[in-house]
Amino acid sequence: MSNFADRLVEAVRKKGNPVCVGLDPRFDLLPAQLRDAAERAHGKTTRAVAEAFLAFNKALLDAVADVAPVCKPQIAFYEEFGSEGIRAYEETVRYAKARGMLVISDAKRGDIGTTAVAYARAHLGGMGIEGGDGTIGFDADALTVNPYMGADTLQPYLDVGAKAGKGIFVLVKTSNPGSGDLQDLQANGKPIYEHVAEIVNKLGAKCRGSCGLHSVGAVVGATYPEQARRLREAMPEAIFLVPGYGAQGGTAQDAAAAFRPDGLGAVVNASRGIIFAFRQEPYAASHGEAKFAEAAREATKAMASGLNQALASR
Amino acid sequence: MSNFADRLVEAVRKKGNPVCVGLDPRFDLLPAQLRDAAERAHGKTTRAVAEAFLAFNKALLDAVADVAPVCKPQIAFYEEFGSEGIRAYEETVRYAKARGMLVISDAKRGDIGTTAVAYARAHLGGMGIEGGDGTIGFDADALTVNPYMGADTLQPYLDVGAKAGKGIFVLVKTSNPGSGDLQDLQANGKPIYEHVAEIVNKLGAKCRGSCGLHSVGAVVGATYPEQARRLREAMPEAIFLVPGYGAQGGTAQDAAAAFRPDGLGAVVNASRGIIFAFRQEPYAASHGEAKFAEAAREATKAMASGLNQALASR
Repeated sequence: MSNFADRLVEAVRKKGNPVCVGLDPRFDLLPAQLRDAAERAHGKTTRAVAEAFLAFNKALLDAVADVAPVCKPQIAFYEEFGSEGIRAYEETVRYAKARGMLVISDAKRGDIGTTAVAYARAHLGGMGIEGGDGTIGFDADALTVNPYMGADTLQPYLDVGAKAGKGIFVLVKTSNPGSGDLQDLQANGKPIYEHVAEIVNKLGAKCRGSCGLHSVGAVVGATYPEQARRLREAMPEAIFLVPGYGAQGGTAQDAAAAFRPDGLGAVVNASRGIIFAFRQEPYAASHGEAKFAEAAREATKAMASGLNQALASR
Repeated sequence: MSNFADRLVEAVRKKGNPVCVGLDPRFDLLPAQLRDAAERAHGKTTRAVAEAFLAFNKALLDAVADVAPVCKPQIAFYEEFGSEGIRAYEETVRYAKARGMLVISDAKRGDIGTTAVAYARAHLGGMGIEGGDGTIGFDADALTVNPYMGADTLQPYLDVGAKAGKGIFVLVKTSNPGSGDLQDLQANGKPIYEHVAEIVNKLGAKCRGSCGLHSVGAVVGATYPEQARRLREAMPEAIFLVPGYGAQGGTAQDAAAAFRPDGLGAVVNASRGIIFAFRQEPYAASHGEAKFAEAAREATKAMASGLNQALASR
């Protein structure tokens, strides 16, 4: 199966829910036992942070891999710690894939020409070093990308990745308060984000899977359900990646607006609500720091159940 | 001197030209002696690529540091090789600063809230690990950023960086053929890129230097000189970072449109035309692979001279 949309739909069907686990570690929010162990071994260094991130992520992935179909590490939280942080990112992607999850590299890259090709190789892999061991970059299953520079800057990701079963998620309507500054401006009778939707449709038409969806997805925030509904109609064959669930205020009902009538076509991400569930009720009381991974597993199950209920009651 | 605009103007005055050297290494285009030495030591691995990039960049920086005020490594070409590539990026930034050049981290990052803060810390540094050695991230002087997600997503870079004398360059009008897809759409009587110009002005007003320019710059491609002229008037206090010179077709006359009448307010980037000058005439004949760094130095001087002539003859 070499089409990203087909691979994603299959993974969602197999796990029975559309939850994406956001792997966005923050050193000061990790369980104390992980921070202490890393600092004992490596002092107050970026190496210690990277080792703590890896220990945290691996335990989380062990706990959620049979529940959630997809995970999405946000590279900024790793990039903050330079090359050591990026090493932790690299190993996280590899570990998640080995545990049978699809991985969306949330890097929101965007650049022109040969630079876009380099980003595509970095995140969607598949090129290798001639005559070498073939392992370069992060080799995720999909990458989030920024459309501001134009459609010609998105094509390289498909040239590099689509045949290898990789996909992209184009920022269309984001979940933050200021997302309207440019995205909502009206041009030729419709908002900019609908112009981006047209680019998504045009690029996606060339990499449609047998499931009827295509490998060019769209990032559509759960915090704007009315716009999500309109965009769902405007991009009937695109897979939506829905951020903003939970900590940013989006509910299961809000997220449901991103799904097609057949219940397919979207994955919903939660980061803090899952990976730091041990800090929040009801999990803080019942699980606590020592059982952070079990708390994440329970929170993932609860989110899956909430989304499935919201989808069933539409 | 703790304002980015003041630091940049001072650097341009001191070196007597506005040239930015783009450090965009490609393994297959490096001088054979560097590739061979790295592969002898490390095999066909990402480590070998990283070591070759570093040797190349250090020799280039040694050759151009007393000529050009600014350099701009494009992170995609390093990210392509995972954590080893990022280590080469990290060391390149450090080496360039030690040689007295300002460094623009060309990463075109863009994300929301705490994620934007993480990118800001990654590229503009200044936060450190509490109680630790203080060295996290890349600690460049400025970062290129993408405005699509809105003004609230750009503010964190200024919160983290402006007081430490760091700046940002916001993508306004880019140099690629498809840049018009979204940037040129008309909304409320003007193109989207002019709406971005207003965001630049608004953010910049809060971090103006004593030179009269401010620390929120704009990326404006040399390939669209007519739009550059209009944007120069729309953003009189912004520093323009001008890509597209040379290999992408922009000339010294085109680039001159980005400067203010007083000859200040822009830096012009060339990458391939400088770092791979040894592969092109007239340098291929006179210098060749063995003297790649000297060829880069000559090409930098020629570009500086061409820009200064174009500015003088306006």
